[in-house]
Amino acid sequence: MTSAIRIIGIDPGLRRCGWGVIETIGNSLRFVASGTVTSDGDMDLASRLCQLHDGLSEVVHAYTPDEAAVEQTFVNKDAVATLKLGQARGIAMLVPARAGLPVAEYAPNAVKKAVIGVGHGEKAQIHMMLKILMPKAEFKGNDAADALAIAICHAHNRGGDRMRKVLTRA
Amino acid sequence: MTSAIRIIGIDPGLRRCGWGVIETIGNSLRFVASGTVTSDGDMDLASRLCQLHDGLSEVVHAYTPDEAAVEQTFVNKDAVATLKLGQARGIAMLVPARAGLPVAEYAPNAVKKAVIGVGHGEKAQIHMMLKILMPKAEFKGNDAADALAIAICHAHNRGGDRMRKVLTRA
Repeated sequence: MTSAIRIIGIDPGLRRCGWGVIETIGNSLRFVASGTVTSDGDMDLASRLCQLHDGLSEVVHAYTPDEAAVEQTFVNKDAVATLKLGQARGIAMLVPARAGLPVAEYAPNAVKKAVIGVGHGEKAQIHMMLKILMPKAEFKGNDAADALAIAICHAHNRGGDRMRKVLTRA
Repeated sequence: MTSAIRIIGIDPGLRRCGWGVIETIGNSLRFVASGTVTSDGDMDLASRLCQLHDGLSEVVHAYTPDEAAVEQTFVNKDAVATLKLGQARGIAMLVPARAGLPVAEYAPNAVKKAVIGVGHGEKAQIHMMLKILMPKAEFKGNDAADALAIAICHAHNRGGDRMRKVLTRA
């Protein structure tokens, strides 16, 4: 019998960090939970980073994942936005790492490819495929959906080709 | 009698985070300690962020500062470097904030202005001024020196004009 591996996917952002927890057992995926950790835009940066830290720590504590995956943020030309995202991403990687989890990173197009089969696509396509891959999946908003997609990408990639069958069949 | 306020200045970086602790008592500055927390470039990003977190936590724990100041990183055109710096900076702000310290941010030119009187200048000028402002100051390398300069900038700005006299006199 293959034991279940529990994975947390995190879509980092300073205002909203999406998170999604799934289990991969052999060739199947199972939805566990998803949500969004937010920070208060009226507070100073250090306090906001604390809010993200505490929120994500609570999630890791509550769902005890075995492994983590974080989106490798797209680096665009807006340096101020990149710096903000970097700060949030630092926290998103620190929390699972301090809990002793290995933390994988995936580029956005790798995440899309794992879920919808190609490296580009609409948010709606990701939402639809999440429902096909995990009929019981629940997610409110794009951040939680993206986080679940990141977790699936890791399930797909962590064991080499093992998960590919599930993903191409769906 | 005015009581001493202990300030930690942090110059964030993924490879090297400089830190400097000073005390400001009335109009005088006193050097307490300085150093550099490093991360291992051969390790994965999440582990490196943990190393920075643990190193800075140790410093905050050892020197129990009352307030923190972090350099507001210059955002240049290299987005990859900005993202890396952002991740390190997230940790540099989180550690003192979680310890309950207020965390101030200062732009590099404000830091230079506080220490050498103008918003631009050579590293050597900063080193020299640190020695004039705090004859007992010890620092190895630019990162620790910059961190001390950030702490002085905060001592200068936290109490409005109170510290200006010291700085312009020197």
